[in-house]
Amino acid sequence: MNSNSVTIAVDVMGGDNYPEAALLGINIFLKTNKNVKFLLFGDENLIQKYLKSYPLLNEFCEVIHVEEKIGDNWKVVEALRNGKNTSMWQAISAVAENKAGAVVSAGNTGALMAISKMVLKMLPKIDRPAIINYLPTKKNPFVILDLGANATCTPENLLQFAVMGDAFSKVVVDVKEPRISILNIGSEEMKGNSTVQEAAKLMTDHKKLNYVGFVEGDQLFDGNIDVVVTDGFSGNIALKVAEGTSKFLAWWLKKPLKKSILAKIGFLFLIPSLLKIRHSIDPRKYNGAMLIGLNGISVKAHGGSDKIAFASAIDATYKLIKGKVNKKIEEELNVE
Amino acid sequence: MNSNSVTIAVDVMGGDNYPEAALLGINIFLKTNKNVKFLLFGDENLIQKYLKSYPLLNEFCEVIHVEEKIGDNWKVVEALRNGKNTSMWQAISAVAENKAGAVVSAGNTGALMAISKMVLKMLPKIDRPAIINYLPTKKNPFVILDLGANATCTPENLLQFAVMGDAFSKVVVDVKEPRISILNIGSEEMKGNSTVQEAAKLMTDHKKLNYVGFVEGDQLFDGNIDVVVTDGFSGNIALKVAEGTSKFLAWWLKKPLKKSILAKIGFLFLIPSLLKIRHSIDPRKYNGAMLIGLNGISVKAHGGSDKIAFASAIDATYKLIKGKVNKKIEEELNVE
Repeated sequence: MNSNSVTIAVDVMGGDNYPEAALLGINIFLKTNKNVKFLLFGDENLIQKYLKSYPLLNEFCEVIHVEEKIGDNWKVVEALRNGKNTSMWQAISAVAENKAGAVVSAGNTGALMAISKMVLKMLPKIDRPAIINYLPTKKNPFVILDLGANATCTPENLLQFAVMGDAFSKVVVDVKEPRISILNIGSEEMKGNSTVQEAAKLMTDHKKLNYVGFVEGDQLFDGNIDVVVTDGFSGNIALKVAEGTSKFLAWWLKKPLKKSILAKIGFLFLIPSLLKIRHSIDPRKYNGAMLIGLNGISVKAHGGSDKIAFASAIDATYKLIKGKVNKKIEEELNVE
Repeated sequence: MNSNSVTIAVDVMGGDNYPEAALLGINIFLKTNKNVKFLLFGDENLIQKYLKSYPLLNEFCEVIHVEEKIGDNWKVVEALRNGKNTSMWQAISAVAENKAGAVVSAGNTGALMAISKMVLKMLPKIDRPAIINYLPTKKNPFVILDLGANATCTPENLLQFAVMGDAFSKVVVDVKEPRISILNIGSEEMKGNSTVQEAAKLMTDHKKLNYVGFVEGDQLFDGNIDVVVTDGFSGNIALKVAEGTSKFLAWWLKKPLKKSILAKIGFLFLIPSLLKIRHSIDPRKYNGAMLIGLNGISVKAHGGSDKIAFASAIDATYKLIKGKVNKKIEEELNVE
């Protein structure tokens, strides 16, 4: 470990495949990046056997034994009231106490959001946190927020989302001057509701944002936009419809394989190409939705994460810390 | 033609491939269904040569010569002010005057909506028209509305949409007792905004609706829901994101074909199966978005429709007339 090292707190008790997905994911990450120290929050008995088997984990991880964990079905109120002694809460607290630069968990999303908000507090000049992530396109990945934290938003909320998306795109996707857009149901200026129209004006007037206009749902994957701003209702629907459509089409494409011997032969020839494609648009590469807008970095790995997906979440988290994403947001809000 | 015959007014001057797509589409339809008479609105000089070449068109179509047409780029205000002598307006008027049971156009969407609303007026007890269509799933197609006519909606609007979607599902998709759902960002009762929560209560209380709860974007294509109700903002985004995702994935799948000889060979073996799939989920089969809620049937064929797509739109229109969709809606609204 050198002086550039950062520390990431990990709640290893969250998600469907705990603690293995988190621990083996960290191990994958450590193979190519040894500048990170990990604080592992969870049941020591479960964790120790992995530390014994994986020398990298043993070298770069410190275990903080926590017996309790947040249940997958806990309601937010329940988590806030009874969650203090859980692995998730303790991992988040490590960020608030400056013992770690970020926290990662594959646990209960509502609980992670609520506890992060309570423990880390908001960034100055940000009213609401948003869920942010990025998705592949024909060219560069695009960043999209909010993905579900806020069902209704004001134009001012959307402007703050734009500033946060701008910083995220620069830091994680490495875009120099991100093209910012608002998701709408038409590209003409007068389309949509008054919220998006008013937000468009605010973004046009903002000195530091490269606002390029409205974008429609069918243009998201063309690669001509770097940041897509939307309220949490539309953003969540966009994300999930994209997911549902992909699954549906995959199901359709596989159907003939069950019936036709010709199709089976054809598929064998296609395997090498499909594996290449799979690598490029593997959803596990796009894991690690950040709760952006908080005074600290809190990353949600997908509940179904395997080790590859968890390693991606760690990788995104590392970039967020190294890129000082929150400092960038504060700077942009100050020039407003 | 027998006593069961219906009449459909067609604006043959709309869309990218006018008048050919409309005329050859009607010809395809007439090959299997001779119970429809068509009133063709448009330039007689362009239409006549098709009538000479296609005996079915000659037998079942009457031409109403109209010189003017609505421009593709006309604004709504422009269309309402200057559109009276166009093929679209005249075709819509034929429905208002009971000369036709429905109108179909592949022309300017905004103009078709505005003129239809002005000329046909609303159904009793319906406050706003909605754009409705259906999409394929793993099982039966599902019906979804509103797809973009109303950017913001009240809970009462959504209830009326549910009633209209229920009737459409029965008439066009042939579902006996459609399962009605509201698009939301979570399936739990407390999720989303107050509009969807209030709408859910109204639908639960409605005697004639089989309301089954919220549905999320990733579940739309599973085939467990028959009608998806949403405001025009979310609905338009859902539809277009599904379209964009499909195009993006098709682009990805074709990529290796350019580079790999193995992939090319594999693709040859797959062609028979792919053709079968294509037939099942061919977007041209799902053409013909209806503007529902008006006192008359007005159907929008996709601007890019070819003859196959136009034939589908005619087929859907025929079902809407024969199924007396508007009468069904009025009956359900009366038992409220």
